[in-house]
Amino acid sequence: MTSAKQILHTSETRFRARYSETDKMGVIYYANYLVWMEMGRTDYCKSVGFDYRDMELDGANMAVAEATCRYITPARYDDEILVRTQVERLNRRLITFTYVVSNDQTGTVLAEGRTVHIAMGNDGKSRSIPQRYVQLMKAAALSS
Amino acid sequence: MTSAKQILHTSETRFRARYSETDKMGVIYYANYLVWMEMGRTDYCKSVGFDYRDMELDGANMAVAEATCRYITPARYDDEILVRTQVERLNRRLITFTYVVSNDQTGTVLAEGRTVHIAMGNDGKSRSIPQRYVQLMKAAALSS
Amino acid sequence: MTSAKQILHTSETRFRARYSETDKMGVIYYANYLVWMEMGRTDYCKSVGFDYRDMELDGANMAVAEATCRYITPARYDDEILVRTQVERLNRRLITFTYVVSNDQTGTVLAEGRTVHIAMGNDGKSRSIPQRYVQLMKAAALSS
Amino acid sequence: MTSAKQILHTSETRFRARYSETDKMGVIYYANYLVWMEMGRTDYCKSVGFDYRDMELDGANMAVAEATCRYITPARYDDEILVRTQVERLNRRLITFTYVVSNDQTGTVLAEGRTVHIAMGNDGKSRSIPQRYVQLMKAAALSS
Repeated sequence: MTSAKQILHTSETRFRARYSETDKMGVIYYANYLVWMEMGRTDYCKSVGFDYRDMELDGANMAVAEATCRYITPARYDDEILVRTQVERLNRRLITFTYVVSNDQTGTVLAEGRTVHIAMGNDGKSRSIPQRYVQLMKAAALSS
Repeated sequence: MTSAKQILHTSETRFRARYSETDKMGVIYYANYLVWMEMGRTDYCKSVGFDYRDMELDGANMAVAEATCRYITPARYDDEILVRTQVERLNRRLITFTYVVSNDQTGTVLAEGRTVHIAMGNDGKSRSIPQRYVQLMKAAALSS
Repeated sequence: MTSAKQILHTSETRFRARYSETDKMGVIYYANYLVWMEMGRTDYCKSVGFDYRDMELDGANMAVAEATCRYITPARYDDEILVRTQVERLNRRLITFTYVVSNDQTGTVLAEGRTVHIAMGNDGKSRSIPQRYVQLMKAAALSS
Repeated sequence: MTSAKQILHTSETRFRARYSETDKMGVIYYANYLVWMEMGRTDYCKSVGFDYRDMELDGANMAVAEATCRYITPARYDDEILVRTQVERLNRRLITFTYVVSNDQTGTVLAEGRTVHIAMGNDGKSRSIPQRYVQLMKAAALSS
């Protein structure tokens, strides 16, 4: 028996924490973790074979319906950050991503997050995700 | 009989959505709602009688342990925003704030959020919130 | 004899510096002054009788061609900020705004800036500013 | 004969433009170029042999006195960005950095910038840059 967690396709995003992302407490400001999650989503799409900007050009935007972040250890300026991104749930109208943000040098987990997205057309109305993108994401999940 | 919801002290924060806060989808980028919640916290502290920066000068920082936001209707550039902030739970080590973000002209609810904070000393270790601040927050809650 | 400086129409924008705008040096991060200048531009347009978002709906975007900021005294979290905005130069294709950012409680000048803007159509090509907006800005300048 | 421009040490910083950095015009918001310049500075310091955060730990902060940016071609979401950073002028109290921001795939120049920095102690007063850092920067300039 294999656990569901093990077989999920995971993308990895690496970068250094920016000075602009710090706050007067000396650590990374909490809203920036949502920016980092968005970078994780961009790379997740690339890792399964498409560019998110092409999906937008096809008239499908992934509007965020919900975002959650649990802050475990503060990140600091110039830390090497690793964001691991997975798709937890996927259908034609909705995608749920999960994220683990860690310090890439020490391995320390900094934060864990989840975002739920609903496909929206350029008119702001909900629509279904174009079949091509759903298939690429499902294929990646199965091949992992 | 009165409901618990009615008697909670609520602070109000008003401002206009900035151009810098928009993204290429034409709406306010999702991480900025966490910035708006932080503005709500700053004003909540003022509304009960103290400045959050004084609490930091007293060596007590309110580190964010968890943040959640549910996005309901997108905000747009130059919209008049109203953030209503309440304290849902409070003890010497932990505060939970809740927020309702709405369009102040139309009354439409844009987002709802919650943040959980833990008091930390300048050494990064957890500590208790100075009594003075706990009392001011409790007094406000009771007088509402 | 009156100086040119005295007769320029000036708009005023007031707000408090946000926690998110600070950095680990304990002061407001330098790029945020450009955000504050943009808020000054939004209010300048309102002060002469139009909303900048309407100008964009009319297909004219004011793309930034150049931005300069001289940092004089650091701003800090929760400081009351005042941005005074003027139009230094205006023709059908180009606008130059100047800004003085100060602490509204103490009067201390924090920064001085200038931005040069070129009108662009939605196709990204340069165009002229719709006559209506040029007239409103010129009328304000003359009546000051 | 060699030109002064050719022999200046240059550091290179590469990354992709973030969705969070776009605005409703569909391009990267102008203040973010100052963030990218700051990333250029961080990498410039590494390229000559030290971490800027160590310099701050040594009590010397490089406060920005002036920043200028000329915007040439708009950057867009997911563009591969290259920031080339040089030190134009350096003495014990002042450093001037210059930057060329370009699209790393097409080579198109997006923006050119300059920042002037003054060394400040943790007390907010001007001081001199520790000799060790000045020497590393001068050595890099000579060896280029």
